[in-house]
Amino acid sequence: MTIQKATNITWHDGAITKSDRERLIQQKGVVIWFTGLSSSGKSTIARAVEERLFERGHQSYVLDGDNIRHGLNKNLGFSPEDREENIRRIGEVAKLFADAGFVTMTAFISPYRKDRDRNRELLKKGEFIEVFVKVSLDVAEERDPKGLYKKARAGEIKEFTGISAPYEEPLNPELILDTDKLDLTQCQDAVIRYLVENGIISANEKG
Amino acid sequence: MTIQKATNITWHDGAITKSDRERLIQQKGVVIWFTGLSSSGKSTIARAVEERLFERGHQSYVLDGDNIRHGLNKNLGFSPEDREENIRRIGEVAKLFADAGFVTMTAFISPYRKDRDRNRELLKKGEFIEVFVKVSLDVAEERDPKGLYKKARAGEIKEFTGISAPYEEPLNPELILDTDKLDLTQCQDAVIRYLVENGIISANEKG
Repeated sequence: MTIQKATNITWHDGAITKSDRERLIQQKGVVIWFTGLSSSGKSTIARAVEERLFERGHQSYVLDGDNIRHGLNKNLGFSPEDREENIRRIGEVAKLFADAGFVTMTAFISPYRKDRDRNRELLKKGEFIEVFVKVSLDVAEERDPKGLYKKARAGEIKEFTGISAPYEEPLNPELILDTDKLDLTQCQDAVIRYLVENGIISANEKG
Repeated sequence: MTIQKATNITWHDGAITKSDRERLIQQKGVVIWFTGLSSSGKSTIARAVEERLFERGHQSYVLDGDNIRHGLNKNLGFSPEDREENIRRIGEVAKLFADAGFVTMTAFISPYRKDRDRNRELLKKGEFIEVFVKVSLDVAEERDPKGLYKKARAGEIKEFTGISAPYEEPLNPELILDTDKLDLTQCQDAVIRYLVENGIISANEKG
Protein backbone atom coordinates (compact mmCIF):
# COMPACT_ATOMS: atom_id res chain seq x y z
CA MET A 1 0.00 0.00 0.00
CA THR A 2 2.70 2.42 1.00
CA ILE A 3 4.72 3.50 -1.97
CA GLN A 4 7.86 5.49 -1.32
CA LYS A 5 7.39 8.42 -3.67
CA ALA A 6 9.54 11.09 -2.08
CA THR A 7 13.03 11.28 -3.51
CA ASN A 8 16.21 13.32 -3.02
CA ILE A 9 15.43 13.75 0.66
CA THR A 10 17.75 13.00 3.53
CA TRP A 11 16.79 12.36 7.13
CA HIS A 12 17.36 15.54 9.08
CA ASP A 13 18.92 14.65 12.38
CA GLY A 14 18.46 18.01 14.03
CA ALA A 15 20.61 19.71 16.57
CA ILE A 16 18.67 18.43 19.58
CA THR A 17 18.40 14.65 19.79
CA LYS A 18 15.91 12.30 21.42
CA SER A 19 18.35 11.56 24.20
CA ASP A 20 18.89 15.29 24.84
CA ARG A 21 15.15 15.67 25.28
CA GLU A 22 14.91 12.57 27.46
CA ARG A 23 17.62 13.98 29.72
CA LEU A 24 15.79 17.30 29.99
CA ILE A 25 12.47 15.79 31.05
CA GLN A 26 13.82 12.70 32.85
CA GLN A 27 11.89 9.99 31.09
CA LYS A 28 12.22 7.81 28.00
CA GLY A 29 10.25 8.40 24.82
CA VAL A 30 8.26 5.28 23.97
CA VAL A 31 5.08 4.10 22.30
CA ILE A 32 2.60 2.07 24.32
CA TRP A 33 0.46 0.42 21.68
CA PHE A 34 -2.86 -0.72 23.19
CA THR A 35 -4.70 -3.22 21.02
CA GLY A 36 -7.95 -5.12 21.60
CA LEU A 37 -11.61 -5.44 20.69
CA SER A 38 -14.04 -2.55 20.73
CA SER A 39 -15.16 -1.95 24.36
CA SER A 40 -12.10 -3.76 25.73
CA GLY A 41 -11.10 -0.58 27.56
CA LYS A 42 -8.10 0.63 25.55
CA SER A 43 -8.90 4.35 25.60
CA THR A 44 -10.13 4.29 29.19
CA ILE A 45 -6.94 2.60 30.38
CA ALA A 46 -4.74 4.93 28.31
CA ARG A 47 -6.47 8.02 29.75
CA ALA A 48 -6.16 6.60 33.26
CA VAL A 49 -2.45 5.92 32.78
CA GLU A 50 -2.04 9.44 31.40
CA GLU A 51 -3.58 10.81 34.58
CA ARG A 52 -1.27 8.74 36.78
CA LEU A 53 1.78 9.81 34.78
CA PHE A 54 0.74 13.44 35.03
CA GLU A 55 0.46 13.17 38.81
CA ARG A 56 4.00 11.82 38.85
CA GLY A 57 5.23 14.77 36.81
CA HIS A 58 5.67 12.82 33.59
CA GLN A 59 4.64 13.78 30.09
CA SER A 60 2.44 11.55 28.05
CA TYR A 61 0.01 11.88 25.18
CA VAL A 62 -2.84 9.67 24.02
CA LEU A 63 -3.69 9.17 20.37
CA ASP A 64 -7.03 7.46 19.96
CA GLY A 65 -9.73 6.90 17.40
CA ASP A 66 -11.71 9.88 18.55
CA ASN A 67 -9.08 12.58 18.18
CA ILE A 68 -7.27 11.05 15.18
CA ARG A 69 -10.38 10.29 13.14
CA HIS A 70 -11.51 13.91 13.47
CA GLY A 71 -8.22 15.31 12.33
CA LEU A 72 -5.29 13.61 10.65
CA ASN A 73 -7.31 10.65 9.40
CA LYS A 74 -10.64 12.27 8.68
CA ASN A 75 -10.17 11.53 4.99
CA LEU A 76 -10.00 7.79 5.66
CA GLY A 77 -12.93 5.42 5.82
CA PHE A 78 -13.14 1.80 6.89
CA SER A 79 -12.12 -0.07 3.73
CA PRO A 80 -9.23 -2.51 4.18
CA GLU A 81 -6.85 -0.03 2.47
CA ASP A 82 -8.04 2.86 4.61
CA ARG A 83 -7.78 0.83 7.81
CA GLU A 84 -4.21 -0.07 6.95
CA GLU A 85 -3.33 3.54 6.12
CA ASN A 86 -5.03 4.62 9.36
CA ILE A 87 -2.77 2.42 11.46
CA ARG A 88 0.29 3.32 9.40
CA ARG A 89 -0.19 7.07 9.93
CA ILE A 90 -0.80 6.57 13.64
CA GLY A 91 2.41 4.57 13.90
CA GLU A 92 4.36 7.35 12.20
CA VAL A 93 2.87 10.06 14.40
CA ALA A 94 3.48 7.97 17.52
CA LYS A 95 7.10 7.63 16.42
CA LEU A 96 7.44 11.42 16.23
CA PHE A 97 5.95 11.79 19.71
CA ALA A 98 8.32 9.14 21.09
CA ASP A 99 11.19 10.98 19.40
CA ALA A 100 10.01 14.12 21.19
CA GLY A 101 10.43 12.23 24.49
CA PHE A 102 6.80 11.47 25.28
CA VAL A 103 5.27 8.37 26.76
CA THR A 104 2.96 8.06 23.77
CA MET A 105 -0.12 5.88 24.04
CA THR A 106 -2.21 4.74 21.11
CA ALA A 107 -5.63 3.20 21.63
CA PHE A 108 -6.91 1.57 18.45
CA ILE A 109 -8.44 -1.84 17.80
CA SER A 110 -5.61 -2.41 15.29
CA PRO A 111 -6.76 -5.96 14.59
CA TYR A 112 -3.97 -7.06 12.25
CA ARG A 113 -0.63 -8.38 13.44
CA LYS A 114 1.06 -7.22 10.27
CA ASP A 115 0.05 -3.58 10.82
CA ARG A 116 1.12 -3.62 14.47
CA ASP A 117 4.40 -5.33 13.68
CA ARG A 118 5.17 -2.80 10.99
CA ASN A 119 4.77 -0.01 13.52
CA ARG A 120 6.95 -1.87 16.00
CA GLU A 121 9.69 -1.91 13.37
CA LEU A 122 9.62 1.89 13.15
CA LEU A 123 11.05 2.04 16.65
CA LYS A 124 14.11 0.80 18.45
CA LYS A 125 14.05 -2.27 20.65
CA GLY A 126 12.27 -1.49 23.91
CA GLU A 127 10.57 1.63 22.54
CA PHE A 128 7.44 -0.15 21.31
CA ILE A 129 5.37 -1.65 24.10
CA GLU A 130 2.47 -3.71 22.82
CA VAL A 131 -0.31 -4.05 25.37
CA PHE A 132 -3.01 -6.56 24.62
CA VAL A 133 -6.21 -5.38 26.25
CA LYS A 134 -7.95 -8.72 26.45
CA VAL A 135 -11.68 -9.12 26.86
CA SER A 136 -14.07 -11.93 26.09
CA LEU A 137 -16.56 -11.16 23.35
CA ASP A 138 -19.39 -11.75 25.85
CA VAL A 139 -18.12 -9.09 28.21
CA ALA A 140 -17.36 -6.66 25.39
CA GLU A 141 -20.89 -7.05 24.02
CA GLU A 142 -22.32 -6.54 27.46
CA ARG A 143 -20.40 -3.25 27.94
CA ASP A 144 -21.03 -1.89 24.43
CA PRO A 145 -21.30 1.77 25.56
CA LYS A 146 -21.85 3.08 22.04
CA GLY A 147 -24.19 0.25 20.99
CA LEU A 148 -21.81 -0.75 18.22
CA TYR A 149 -21.98 -4.49 18.82
CA LYS A 150 -25.76 -4.28 18.73
CA LYS A 151 -25.58 -2.54 15.35
CA ALA A 152 -23.02 -5.05 14.10
CA ARG A 153 -25.23 -7.98 15.14
CA ALA A 154 -28.13 -6.31 13.34
CA GLY A 155 -25.98 -6.02 10.23
CA GLU A 156 -26.03 -2.21 10.37
CA ILE A 157 -22.24 -2.07 10.65
CA LYS A 158 -20.31 -4.28 8.26
CA GLU A 159 -16.92 -5.83 8.95
CA PHE A 160 -17.02 -5.23 12.67
CA THR A 161 -14.01 -6.65 14.49
CA GLY A 162 -14.89 -9.71 16.55
CA ILE A 163 -18.27 -10.17 14.85
CA SER A 164 -17.77 -10.06 11.11
CA ALA A 165 -14.08 -9.22 10.82
CA PRO A 166 -11.09 -10.94 12.42
CA TYR A 167 -9.05 -9.86 15.41
CA GLU A 168 -5.53 -11.24 15.46
CA GLU A 169 -4.29 -11.49 19.04
CA PRO A 170 -0.71 -10.42 19.68
CA LEU A 171 1.68 -13.37 19.85
CA ASN A 172 4.26 -11.80 22.15
CA PRO A 173 2.87 -8.62 23.66
CA GLU A 174 4.91 -6.87 26.31
CA LEU A 175 1.85 -6.84 28.54
CA ILE A 176 -1.57 -8.49 28.70
CA LEU A 177 -4.37 -6.79 30.60
CA ASP A 178 -7.32 -9.12 30.99
CA THR A 179 -10.19 -6.73 31.63
CA ASP A 180 -12.59 -9.59 32.31
CA LYS A 181 -10.65 -9.99 35.56
CA LEU A 182 -8.75 -6.76 36.30
CA ASP A 183 -10.36 -3.48 37.26
CA LEU A 184 -9.16 -0.11 35.98
CA THR A 185 -6.81 0.55 38.90
CA GLN A 186 -5.16 -2.83 38.47
CA CYS A 187 -4.65 -2.09 34.76
CA GLN A 188 -3.13 1.31 35.59
CA ASP A 189 -0.85 -0.29 38.16
CA ALA A 190 0.34 -2.92 35.71
CA VAL A 191 1.28 -0.35 33.06
CA ILE A 192 3.02 1.96 35.52
CA ARG A 193 4.91 -1.00 37.00
CA TYR A 194 6.06 -1.99 33.52
CA LEU A 195 7.32 1.54 32.83
CA VAL A 196 9.22 1.71 36.12
CA GLU A 197 10.71 -1.77 35.81
CA ASN A 198 11.94 -0.99 32.31
CA GLY A 199 13.51 2.31 33.23
CA ILE A 200 11.12 4.45 31.19
CA ILE A 201 10.07 6.48 34.20
CA SER A 202 11.63 6.65 37.65
CA ALA A 203 10.22 4.74 40.61
CA ASN A 204 9.34 7.90 42.47
CA GLU A 205 7.51 11.10 41.73
CA LYS A 206 9.54 13.80 40.08
CA GLY A 207 10.25 17.20 41.49
CA MET B 1 -9.78 17.12 -1.41
CA THR B 2 -10.44 16.25 2.20
CA ILE B 3 -13.65 14.37 2.58
CA GLN B 4 -14.98 13.75 6.07
CA LYS B 5 -15.65 10.03 5.99
CA ALA B 6 -15.46 9.04 9.63
CA THR B 7 -18.85 8.99 11.30
CA ASN B 8 -20.31 8.21 14.71
CA ILE B 9 -17.18 9.47 16.40
CA THR B 10 -17.07 12.04 19.17
CA TRP B 11 -14.08 14.14 20.14
CA HIS B 12 -12.46 12.57 23.17
CA ASP B 13 -11.49 15.33 25.57
CA GLY B 14 -9.29 13.24 27.81
CA ALA B 15 -8.70 13.59 31.49
CA ILE B 16 -5.58 15.74 31.13
CA THR B 17 -6.10 18.95 29.17
CA LYS B 18 -3.77 21.17 27.20
CA SER B 19 -3.75 23.74 29.98
CA ASP B 20 -2.88 21.06 32.55
CA ARG B 21 0.11 20.14 30.46
CA GLU B 22 1.08 23.77 29.91
CA ARG B 23 1.02 24.33 33.65
CA LEU B 24 3.21 21.27 34.22
CA ILE B 25 5.93 22.34 31.80
CA GLN B 26 5.52 26.12 32.13
CA GLN B 27 5.09 27.07 28.52
CA LYS B 28 2.29 27.41 25.96
CA GLY B 29 1.67 24.88 23.22
CA VAL B 30 1.79 26.63 19.85
CA VAL B 31 2.63 26.08 16.21
CA ILE B 32 5.28 28.24 14.59
CA TRP B 33 4.63 27.83 10.90
CA PHE B 34 7.73 28.80 8.88
CA THR B 35 7.00 29.40 5.21
CA GLY B 36 9.24 30.55 2.38
CA LEU B 37 11.12 29.57 -0.76
CA SER B 38 13.50 26.64 -0.93
CA SER B 39 16.86 27.72 0.57
CA SER B 40 15.25 30.59 2.47
CA GLY B 41 16.49 29.06 5.72
CA LYS B 42 13.29 27.69 7.28
CA SER B 43 14.72 24.44 8.65
CA THR B 44 17.98 26.02 9.70
CA ILE B 45 16.19 28.74 11.64
CA ALA B 46 13.75 26.24 13.21
CA ARG B 47 16.62 24.01 14.36
CA ALA B 48 18.48 27.02 15.73
CA VAL B 49 15.40 28.17 17.65
CA GLU B 50 14.95 24.61 18.95
CA GLU B 51 18.49 24.73 20.31
CA ARG B 52 17.91 28.07 22.01
CA LEU B 53 14.64 26.85 23.55
CA PHE B 54 16.34 23.70 24.81
CA GLU B 55 19.05 25.78 26.50
CA ARG B 56 16.28 27.71 28.26
CA GLY B 57 14.68 24.47 29.47
CA HIS B 58 11.77 24.58 27.04
CA GLN B 59 10.35 21.79 24.95
CA SER B 60 10.01 22.15 21.24
CA TYR B 61 9.84 19.90 18.24
CA VAL B 62 10.57 20.53 14.57
CA LEU B 63 8.58 18.93 11.78
CA ASP B 64 10.26 19.42 8.44
CA GLY B 65 10.29 17.99 4.96
CA ASP B 66 13.13 15.67 5.74
CA ASN B 67 11.62 13.78 8.67
CA ILE B 68 7.98 13.96 7.51
CA ARG B 69 8.62 12.91 3.92
CA HIS B 70 10.42 9.77 5.14
CA GLY B 71 7.65 8.75 7.48
CA LEU B 72 4.09 10.01 7.70
CA ASN B 73 4.02 11.39 4.16
CA LYS B 74 6.21 8.92 2.35
CA ASN B 75 3.21 7.81 0.29
CA LEU B 76 2.72 11.31 -1.11
CA GLY B 77 4.37 12.72 -4.19
CA PHE B 78 4.45 16.23 -5.59
CA SER B 79 1.18 16.45 -7.54
CA PRO B 80 -1.11 19.35 -6.55
CA GLU B 81 -3.38 16.95 -4.62
CA ASP B 82 -0.46 15.33 -2.81
CA ARG B 83 1.07 18.70 -1.94
CA GLU B 84 -2.22 19.81 -0.44
CA GLU B 85 -2.59 16.58 1.53
CA ASN B 86 1.04 16.92 2.65
CA ILE B 87 0.40 20.32 4.21
CA ARG B 88 -2.95 19.21 5.62
CA ARG B 89 -1.44 16.24 7.47
CA ILE B 90 1.41 18.37 8.80
CA GLY B 91 -1.11 20.89 10.12
CA GLU B 92 -3.02 18.15 11.92
CA VAL B 93 0.12 16.64 13.45
CA ALA B 94 1.35 20.09 14.49
CA LYS B 95 -2.01 20.64 16.19
CA LEU B 96 -1.53 17.44 18.21
CA PHE B 97 1.95 18.55 19.25
CA ALA B 98 0.65 21.97 20.28
CA ASP B 99 -2.11 20.23 22.25
CA ALA B 100 0.64 18.23 23.97
CA GLY B 101 2.17 21.55 25.08
CA PHE B 102 5.08 21.78 22.65
CA VAL B 103 6.45 24.79 20.87
CA THR B 104 5.98 23.04 17.55
CA MET B 105 7.83 24.30 14.53
CA THR B 106 7.06 23.34 10.94
CA ALA B 107 9.47 24.13 8.14
CA PHE B 108 7.86 23.62 4.75
CA ILE B 109 7.75 25.81 1.65
CA SER B 110 3.92 25.65 1.92
CA PRO B 111 3.47 28.02 -1.01
CA TYR B 112 -0.31 28.37 -0.94
CA ARG B 113 -2.15 30.81 1.32
CA LYS B 114 -5.24 28.61 1.34
CA ASP B 115 -3.34 25.63 2.78
CA ARG B 116 -1.63 27.73 5.45
CA ASP B 117 -4.84 29.51 6.39
CA ARG B 118 -6.66 26.19 6.75
CA ASN B 119 -4.02 25.05 9.22
CA ARG B 120 -4.28 28.34 11.09
CA GLU B 121 -7.99 27.65 11.53
CA LEU B 122 -7.26 24.35 13.26
CA LEU B 123 -5.85 26.29 16.19
CA LYS B 124 -7.06 28.91 18.61
CA LYS B 125 -6.19 32.58 18.20
CA GLY B 126 -2.56 33.15 19.14
CA GLU B 127 -1.61 29.49 18.82
CA PHE B 128 -0.65 29.67 15.14
CA ILE B 129 2.37 31.86 14.48
CA GLU B 130 3.08 32.31 10.80
CA VAL B 131 6.68 33.24 10.11
CA PHE B 132 7.51 34.37 6.62
CA VAL B 133 11.12 33.49 5.92
CA LYS B 134 11.74 36.00 3.18
CA VAL B 135 14.54 35.72 0.67
CA SER B 136 15.08 37.16 -2.77
CA LEU B 137 15.14 34.61 -5.55
CA ASP B 138 18.69 35.73 -6.42
CA VAL B 139 19.99 34.97 -2.95
CA ALA B 140 18.08 31.68 -2.73
CA GLU B 141 19.54 30.55 -6.06
CA GLU B 142 22.99 31.54 -4.93
CA ARG B 143 22.70 29.43 -1.73
CA ASP B 144 21.06 26.40 -3.35
CA PRO B 145 22.82 23.84 -1.09
CA LYS B 146 21.13 20.85 -2.73
CA GLY B 147 21.43 22.18 -6.29
CA LEU B 148 17.65 22.16 -6.66
CA TYR B 149 17.36 25.57 -8.33
CA LYS B 150 20.00 24.50 -10.83
CA LYS B 151 17.96 21.41 -11.66
CA ALA B 152 14.76 23.43 -11.85
CA ARG B 153 16.36 25.94 -14.25
CA ALA B 154 17.56 23.00 -16.35
CA GLY B 155 14.00 21.66 -16.44
CA GLU B 156 14.96 18.53 -14.48
CA ILE B 157 12.52 19.39 -11.69
CA LYS B 158 9.06 20.46 -12.78
CA GLU B 159 6.82 22.85 -10.87
CA PHE B 160 9.53 24.18 -8.65
CA THR B 161 8.33 26.94 -6.33
CA GLY B 162 9.65 30.36 -7.36
CA ILE B 163 10.79 29.14 -10.78
CA SER B 164 7.93 27.28 -12.41
CA ALA B 165 5.33 27.26 -9.63
CA PRO B 166 3.92 30.16 -7.61
CA TYR B 167 4.77 31.18 -4.08
CA GLU B 168 2.04 33.15 -2.36
CA GLU B 169 3.54 35.44 0.28
CA PRO B 170 1.70 35.64 3.61
CA LEU B 171 -0.51 38.73 3.82
CA ASN B 172 -0.44 39.12 7.61
CA PRO B 173 2.29 36.92 9.05
CA GLU B 174 3.03 37.24 12.74
CA LEU B 175 6.70 37.66 11.88
CA ILE B 176 8.83 38.36 8.83
CA LEU B 177 12.45 37.26 8.79
CA ASP B 178 14.29 38.77 5.85
CA THR B 179 17.24 36.45 5.44
CA ASP B 180 18.75 38.65 2.75
CA LYS B 181 19.53 41.02 5.62
CA LEU B 182 19.41 39.12 8.92
CA ASP B 183 21.92 36.51 9.99
CA LEU B 184 20.94 33.32 11.80
CA THR B 185 21.43 34.76 15.28
CA GLN B 186 19.22 37.73 14.48
CA CYS B 187 16.51 35.37 13.21
CA GLN B 188 16.77 33.27 16.38
CA ASP B 189 16.56 36.40 18.50
CA ALA B 190 13.48 37.65 16.69
CA VAL B 191 11.59 34.37 17.18
CA ILE B 192 12.55 34.05 20.84
CA ARG B 193 11.57 37.68 21.43
CA TYR B 194 8.17 37.03 19.86
CA LEU B 195 7.61 34.00 22.10
CA VAL B 196 8.56 35.93 25.23
CA GLU B 197 6.52 39.02 24.33
CA ASN B 198 3.46 36.89 23.68
CA GLY B 199 3.72 34.92 26.91
CA ILE B 200 4.48 31.60 25.25
CA ILE B 201 7.71 31.18 27.17
CA SER B 202 8.97 33.10 30.16
CA ALA B 203 11.54 35.87 29.83
CA ASN B 204 14.12 33.97 31.84
CA GLU B 205 15.61 30.52 31.82
CA LYS B 206 13.67 27.88 33.66
CA GLY B 207 14.94 25.89 36.59
